[in-house]
Amino acid sequence: MTALTDQEQVEQANTTFYEAMERGDLDALSGLWLEGEHDEISCVHPGWPVLTGRGDVLRSYALIMANTEYIQFFLTDVTVSVAEDTALVTCTENILSGGPAEESGELGPLVGQLVVATNVFRRTPEGWKLWSHHGSPVLTETDEEPDDETPA
Amino acid sequence: MTALTDQEQVEQANTTFYEAMERGDLDALSGLWLEGEHDEISCVHPGWPVLTGRGDVLRSYALIMANTEYIQFFLTDVTVSVAEDTALVTCTENILSGGPAEESGELGPLVGQLVVATNVFRRTPEGWKLWSHHGSPVLTETDEEPDDETPA
Repeated sequence: MTALTDQEQVEQANTTFYEAMERGDLDALSGLWLEGEHDEISCVHPGWPVLTGRGDVLRSYALIMANTEYIQFFLTDVTVSVAEDTALVTCTENILSGGPAEESGELGPLVGQLVVATNVFRRTPEGWKLWSHHGSPVLTETDEEPDDETPA
Repeated sequence: MTALTDQEQVEQANTTFYEAMERGDLDALSGLWLEGEHDEISCVHPGWPVLTGRGDVLRSYALIMANTEYIQFFLTDVTVSVAEDTALVTCTENILSGGPAEESGELGPLVGQLVVATNVFRRTPEGWKLWSHHGSPVLTETDEEPDDETPA
């Protein structure tokens, strides 16, 4: 059994973060965020202002989970860059989600959403922990060829 | 003359970044981004997909500058968190910008925009350099009291 490289450990931590969201597991999610008096965490949900500190960040996830019946993340374009004890992950979150059931008891309508995220992790004795998450909606066309849009 | 603290140095680097944008100074801006074979930089403009690597990132700024006649950033809510050789900055970019002049020669209409940014810096022998910039539009109401929205 070979030990995981830093890159692999970080990618695993990143995947674990999204899996906790999918399960609506606030305890697991809380444990993935950095904790310490000098470590001010920050979080930006798509379209939201900046949230700073464990209190506001974790409350926002409790609120989102309370209003989300179903959510699944298909991650693409995952890139990991490690420098000493900090790691930078960017990825595209292809999200499929649904709100709480209607009064009729049926699941709310499923909605697809394209979000890009920058996640910053720090190495700790308990593994890589989230220092910052910034997700934002992709509003422009993504034809993978931005050069085509350059004025001639 | 007292030396600047890490926090002060980082805040200064962050300010310098926005000043280079305001001046449309692509050379200065390029010099503020981390450079090195192992340092993969990433950048997300509001509503854009992720750009990775100096080539794509700097081309995007050239494109934005070519289409921006006037831009001014009023930074608020600037928070700086430093851990060893990495620093995390979050801020609100209150942007006032205008496109290129119309054919009549008049300046295009000025547009206000509310953007939040997470900027990650790394300490180098040449000062703090940008490793990542992620800006996103604020689409929800910012009443500073997210708790009010919590379901009873």
